[in-house]
Amino acid sequence: MSLQPVWIDGCWRPADAVGSFRALDPSTGEALEQEYPISSRADVEAAIVAGAGAAPALEAAGPEAVAAFLERYAALLQERAETIATAAARETALPLRPRLAEVEMGRTVDQLRQAAAAARDRGWCLPTIDTRAGVRSRYGPLGGPVVVFGPNNFPLAFNGVAGGDFAAAIAAGNPVIAKAHPSHPRTCQLLAEAAAEAVADSGLPPASVQLLYRISHEDGAYLVSHPAVGATGYTGSRAGGLALKRAADAAGKPIYLEMSSVNPVFMLPGALRERAGQIADELQASALLGCGQFCTNPGLVVLPAGAAAAAFVAEMVRRFEATASGVLLAPSGVANLDAAVARLRAAGAELLTGGAPAEGPGCRYRNTVLRVTGSRFLQQPEALQTEAFGNAVLFVIAEDAEQMERIAAALEGNLTGTVYTHSGGDDDARYERLARLLRRRVGRLLNDKMPTGVAVSPAMNHGGPFPATGHPGFTAVGIPASLRRLAMLECYDNVREQRLPAELRDANPTGRLWRFVDGEWTRADVGGAERR
Amino acid sequence: MSLQPVWIDGCWRPADAVGSFRALDPSTGEALEQEYPISSRADVEAAIVAGAGAAPALEAAGPEAVAAFLERYAALLQERAETIATAAARETALPLRPRLAEVEMGRTVDQLRQAAAAARDRGWCLPTIDTRAGVRSRYGPLGGPVVVFGPNNFPLAFNGVAGGDFAAAIAAGNPVIAKAHPSHPRTCQLLAEAAAEAVADSGLPPASVQLLYRISHEDGAYLVSHPAVGATGYTGSRAGGLALKRAADAAGKPIYLEMSSVNPVFMLPGALRERAGQIADELQASALLGCGQFCTNPGLVVLPAGAAAAAFVAEMVRRFEATASGVLLAPSGVANLDAAVARLRAAGAELLTGGAPAEGPGCRYRNTVLRVTGSRFLQQPEALQTEAFGNAVLFVIAEDAEQMERIAAALEGNLTGTVYTHSGGDDDARYERLARLLRRRVGRLLNDKMPTGVAVSPAMNHGGPFPATGHPGFTAVGIPASLRRLAMLECYDNVREQRLPAELRDANPTGRLWRFVDGEWTRADVGGAERR
Repeated sequence: MSLQPVWIDGCWRPADAVGSFRALDPSTGEALEQEYPISSRADVEAAIVAGAGAAPALEAAGPEAVAAFLERYAALLQERAETIATAAARETALPLRPRLAEVEMGRTVDQLRQAAAAARDRGWCLPTIDTRAGVRSRYGPLGGPVVVFGPNNFPLAFNGVAGGDFAAAIAAGNPVIAKAHPSHPRTCQLLAEAAAEAVADSGLPPASVQLLYRISHEDGAYLVSHPAVGATGYTGSRAGGLALKRAADAAGKPIYLEMSSVNPVFMLPGALRERAGQIADELQASALLGCGQFCTNPGLVVLPAGAAAAAFVAEMVRRFEATASGVLLAPSGVANLDAAVARLRAAGAELLTGGAPAEGPGCRYRNTVLRVTGSRFLQQPEALQTEAFGNAVLFVIAEDAEQMERIAAALEGNLTGTVYTHSGGDDDARYERLARLLRRRVGRLLNDKMPTGVAVSPAMNHGGPFPATGHPGFTAVGIPASLRRLAMLECYDNVREQRLPAELRDANPTGRLWRFVDGEWTRADVGGAERR
Repeated sequence: MSLQPVWIDGCWRPADAVGSFRALDPSTGEALEQEYPISSRADVEAAIVAGAGAAPALEAAGPEAVAAFLERYAALLQERAETIATAAARETALPLRPRLAEVEMGRTVDQLRQAAAAARDRGWCLPTIDTRAGVRSRYGPLGGPVVVFGPNNFPLAFNGVAGGDFAAAIAAGNPVIAKAHPSHPRTCQLLAEAAAEAVADSGLPPASVQLLYRISHEDGAYLVSHPAVGATGYTGSRAGGLALKRAADAAGKPIYLEMSSVNPVFMLPGALRERAGQIADELQASALLGCGQFCTNPGLVVLPAGAAAAAFVAEMVRRFEATASGVLLAPSGVANLDAAVARLRAAGAELLTGGAPAEGPGCRYRNTVLRVTGSRFLQQPEALQTEAFGNAVLFVIAEDAEQMERIAAALEGNLTGTVYTHSGGDDDARYERLARLLRRRVGRLLNDKMPTGVAVSPAMNHGGPFPATGHPGFTAVGIPASLRRLAMLECYDNVREQRLPAELRDANPTGRLWRFVDGEWTRADVGGAERR
């Protein structure tokens, strides 16, 4: 069987392959039809050269052309939603509906449209004008392609060639070199075929988007540290992310990583007393959603010791046992989850149910519940924060409020942190102290709500302190902030007005663009009146 | 003679010293009176622990207290300007007036006041509210102290205990651990004494500001990578910066570096034809200002080959020879400058004047002019971009417009890039192509103006692509952007309104705060009308 082509410099062409691979159907463990290439350094080099050449051309094409591309791409994905989601379902075993065809495809299309609107609006670039000093600045493209590594758990909405980092990179005016996740190459290929049509239809430079399926670790490090590359966005495992980070950091190249998170949930006594059953419903739904394979999956749940906690844990064990195990994304998912459970047990966590591969074909692991005392947790906080990515949850039973706070203070950086509280004021004093500790350790703080929903909102932070990500100031979800990561700060000092980019000239280029002029946000022209 | 004390946890106390040092008067080479400690790991550890403890307390103190501190500190510096500037003049040989006592002290005081205003205004934190999704976010403190390493060339305005990074860190709500530059410890001590009074007067937690004079390289790496530290700001040499960057990056700790820059200046033919004499005045003033020891010193000047360029270079040689050599900041400055000139000559640059230590006592180097052809530059672009920090300039003679563009394309990341053009349209076509290349390689692009002035403006970018800094998206000068570097993105999802920070509650906390609410910038309360 011949290898599927890669997409380099505007052409679907045979890879310079050093090997090949096929994806599996995780529900059966059987290999799928298409065979994909592992690209050589030559393919990587060709993509970099073409992407670097496309950067100034894409900038010259301007935000209207970029917006037209994003909208055309969104429309094509909507037309092909069934085909693409079906391929993704085969490669990931995630449910076709509502998850893939409706929820995740809807999110993907919506993100592309939001990115198109942001490119048109231009407000993401924070135009800043100091008329007295004669200095003006905005964020602008990086001048080289952005590399996007997509993860295995969201084959559409975080895909390297269609997801959030992709949309942000293009909307900010950068070409993209997408690296497929090798567990769903066919999904990536179908998405990229739509992207290719949209690139052609909207007249973007041909190398504005490129796709490689798989490369060696060495070539990955080469790619993210290459002088001609602008930046990298990565969603995936901590080990893979840290290796790429080392390479990019040494070269002074920005890299944004979303790596791992146990997403601690603290249940305060009043909440448990008030609505344990409702909270159990929420935790079950959140913890087993997508077989627990969410970046924001609630993997660590801290409860106050006592009868209510004991009953809550017993109830969760009952529910986990009564629920059929889902299918994990890949054989490595089963192995990694098993290793994580073993590490947690070695550190003192007690296995209450699950803890072994499940019956049946393909990639399955029994729904797993573990428990550990707060004292034990505080003895080995690092090992007991091992992320068990999948359908497993660790309960930590805190002796008292003070120990619960010490547990919060021992947490690593996480994407989210959640506190469930009494709907009246019963937990308020405890909440205050706990939330203050949690605040500096998580990107998103939630109340009375599970963390698995990540709204695509300008106010969202899908990020957090290391090691959840590489930097606590950036979000991977949420427009316009996600665009500004993938940009450089461009300052113009004494530059003649007609030489400035449109966003910084005296006239407001859209009549609607918000700009920070002499210390105030305004839509007015510089030296002119506010427009209608 | 007893060692001067360090300032740790609110006390001036004897250092746990592993050695000592004295600063020199660079104009004579003689050691100054006071003897300062080289701190041990124990001092570093004590400062980290105290700084980490101060972080939540400083946050609780709130922006009004921080603003009061910054204003009180500014007022004390104004009162003591003469004393402090006199000490700085002895330690740096920079002119007492107008440079230190007026210009640089004025800038320092102004920065502290701008930072106070930013803390009060709170707009730096970009409050973002999505009422439909129930998600709100802002930038907030990092939760640990910010380490600030000041450089040798601005003993006041970039000082670790008084300069731009210091002001930004505190205004964003973070404690500071300042690392003095060891060439001006007395200046740092006098500044810190004023800071200590201001801390006490304004009721900030005692460990909100701390000062160490000197530590080993290993302890520097330990400090910037410590889990309890929030981030680091560094201004200094490339070698020192890269070593700290490696340590901080490996630990996932943000670090902002301002390292090195040759600040290329391109003279287009029309400009030279029109006003060579005036440009020579500007270049001479900019290149020899502070004996050339500015981060934004124009060290690389590209001219179009021909009689005008030859005359211009000859004129600059004449002027450099006719001007007395200034005093460099330290003996290492003389040695480093001499080594850089040797490296440039080894790569093919021709020495036209200078190129050796100057007569007289102390740290002096002859005003130096070098020249190289564009072809030669393009053969060894890396070596010929060696920063010769001090009173030296390298002219590159480009054969034609195309070669000038290739020179621009071969540039590393720089803080600034400048193009001099004809005041009419004579250079416009060349400008277009050149500026497009330069734009992606420099943080600040200038027209017809030398780069050495760095206005403290919201629109400023004192930053640029690696290796000028560590990240192309951040500026060290300019409020409010410089504050946001030293902050984390805090998101609140479904958090009850009374539990939110003031900036995110429905009511506008100042009545004047600009917030991004449901996609629009507004000063209105959420759900309310715009206030007056």
